[in-house]
Amino acid sequence: MGIGIDLGGTTIKGGIVSTQGHIFEERYIMTESRRGYRAVLDDLVQLIKALQEIAPTEKAVGIGIPGIVSGDGSTVLSSPNLFWKNRALKKDLEARLSINVLLVNDATAACIAEAAFGSIIGRANAMMITLGTGVGGGLILSHKIITGAHGVATEVGHMIMGENFYTCNCGKNGCLETFASGTALVRYCDMRLKQGVSSSLKKSNILDGKIILHEAKTGDKLALEAVDRLAEYLGMAISNISDVIDPEIYTIGGGLSYAGDFLLEKISFATKKYLTYPDFAVPEIVLAELRNEAGIIGAANLMHYI
Amino acid sequence: MGIGIDLGGTTIKGGIVSTQGHIFEERYIMTESRRGYRAVLDDLVQLIKALQEIAPTEKAVGIGIPGIVSGDGSTVLSSPNLFWKNRALKKDLEARLSINVLLVNDATAACIAEAAFGSIIGRANAMMITLGTGVGGGLILSHKIITGAHGVATEVGHMIMGENFYTCNCGKNGCLETFASGTALVRYCDMRLKQGVSSSLKKSNILDGKIILHEAKTGDKLALEAVDRLAEYLGMAISNISDVIDPEIYTIGGGLSYAGDFLLEKISFATKKYLTYPDFAVPEIVLAELRNEAGIIGAANLMHYI
Repeated sequence: MGIGIDLGGTTIKGGIVSTQGHIFEERYIMTESRRGYRAVLDDLVQLIKALQEIAPTEKAVGIGIPGIVSGDGSTVLSSPNLFWKNRALKKDLEARLSINVLLVNDATAACIAEAAFGSIIGRANAMMITLGTGVGGGLILSHKIITGAHGVATEVGHMIMGENFYTCNCGKNGCLETFASGTALVRYCDMRLKQGVSSSLKKSNILDGKIILHEAKTGDKLALEAVDRLAEYLGMAISNISDVIDPEIYTIGGGLSYAGDFLLEKISFATKKYLTYPDFAVPEIVLAELRNEAGIIGAANLMHYI
Repeated sequence: MGIGIDLGGTTIKGGIVSTQGHIFEERYIMTESRRGYRAVLDDLVQLIKALQEIAPTEKAVGIGIPGIVSGDGSTVLSSPNLFWKNRALKKDLEARLSINVLLVNDATAACIAEAAFGSIIGRANAMMITLGTGVGGGLILSHKIITGAHGVATEVGHMIMGENFYTCNCGKNGCLETFASGTALVRYCDMRLKQGVSSSLKKSNILDGKIILHEAKTGDKLALEAVDRLAEYLGMAISNISDVIDPEIYTIGGGLSYAGDFLLEKISFATKKYLTYPDFAVPEIVLAELRNEAGIIGAANLMHYI
């Protein structure tokens, strides 16, 4: 059993997770991070206390953070979604709670959930890549998570892949997530529509990644072009990651991954083109299995992966 | 103490290494790999037996390989320098020797030597990048080497960095080593000289990385342009590697690194431009300290890093 919290920009979700990976006693609070750090901290304390009452023997709570956790696991160094910088969340919570607090990046939490109960179960060396609004990652080597000396390992969305027509939120040009995220799909299609390309996407008032993937499946030329471009750059990024740490398997998660085999096949095809040693070093690439609950499940199992 | 072998394309070097990292009883044989696998195998057996006579209590010998060693450490999957493919070197040697045989990629061996006695001594998470004819790498996480599920981890010379005007030996276009190696310097200067650019490099009948670095130091415009280009791409690659595994320190080795602070400053400057989190996640970048003997020293210490 374990207590896990998924601290999102919109919702704080907490739950008690069984040893089989099932959540019972799930609780929600709206994050409303504009209220400031102290208000969110108060809510976290109440939520954790309520979960502790149900599971009083638990010795640790894991919290998934939408941002960078310091290498020592003590501090949220940066979370644009929460408007936090340098917040000593572990100390601040432990001062008010009778339980150890463990912090982890949210994509790494999702990776732990997949390793414990999902698509990469039992795999010693595995990389998760989450394709959502941005691109995140989680990495497991020898069954333990890799978070890096400064806490910025698996920030693979910011690997520079080549010049792009718009600049990343991080300030750099050419980041993977400007080629291979929901935002990237929308920006690319917007740009091409403005160039006068005809497409069924013109019907949509508001574009998002889901719509573009759907239209690509139905054969729209522009949507297909955008998805193929995403797969191409993601394949190149996967081959570059293999040149660094050579995991045995990649699992693709996040909202875009719900497009299923249609997307997976394109990513696998592109990856094979770029792998350095396609004769003897081809990683498996699969789809993540857990969805919205991965954050809570992974956070609740964090203690087994550090 | 340990027995280490540096199996190079030209020379097989073996030695006994003290616990302080000093080599005594160094022995050489010419590799002459054109003779075929069996002849090199015979020479390795004789060399190791001779070293065992001097150090009869050693239980393992480490061998640095100029190529890819399989993830399980049993097989040389590919070594263009030796003309080997899929050679079960561990089994073939152990059948004729009374000692455990441990295989490792040569750049990883150099990384071990730096971790045990050189520039990254005592560092838990460190990456070595070797700049020679090509670009190699070694990675230590939690004081252990990372070789990957298929043995191709730290093949960072083949990360794709952008389009280049010539194709890499591996068959891909845009590999880091076509931008940031001795070969890359020569190819770039050759290309620019053919375009009619004036340069002191015109005096040299045969160009190599060392000459180009020397001329860059003395202020030759073309040589400087080539070295700046190398540093730019290497900085981008280092920032991409930090986005994957975020080591606390990088050490730059290989023949080009003998250019010293002149090159190091350029690489550090370029890296800072591309780092994703320059405010709180800046790795140290230093020069390797061990030179030609790093291969033997690292191989002899392999057993402590696996």
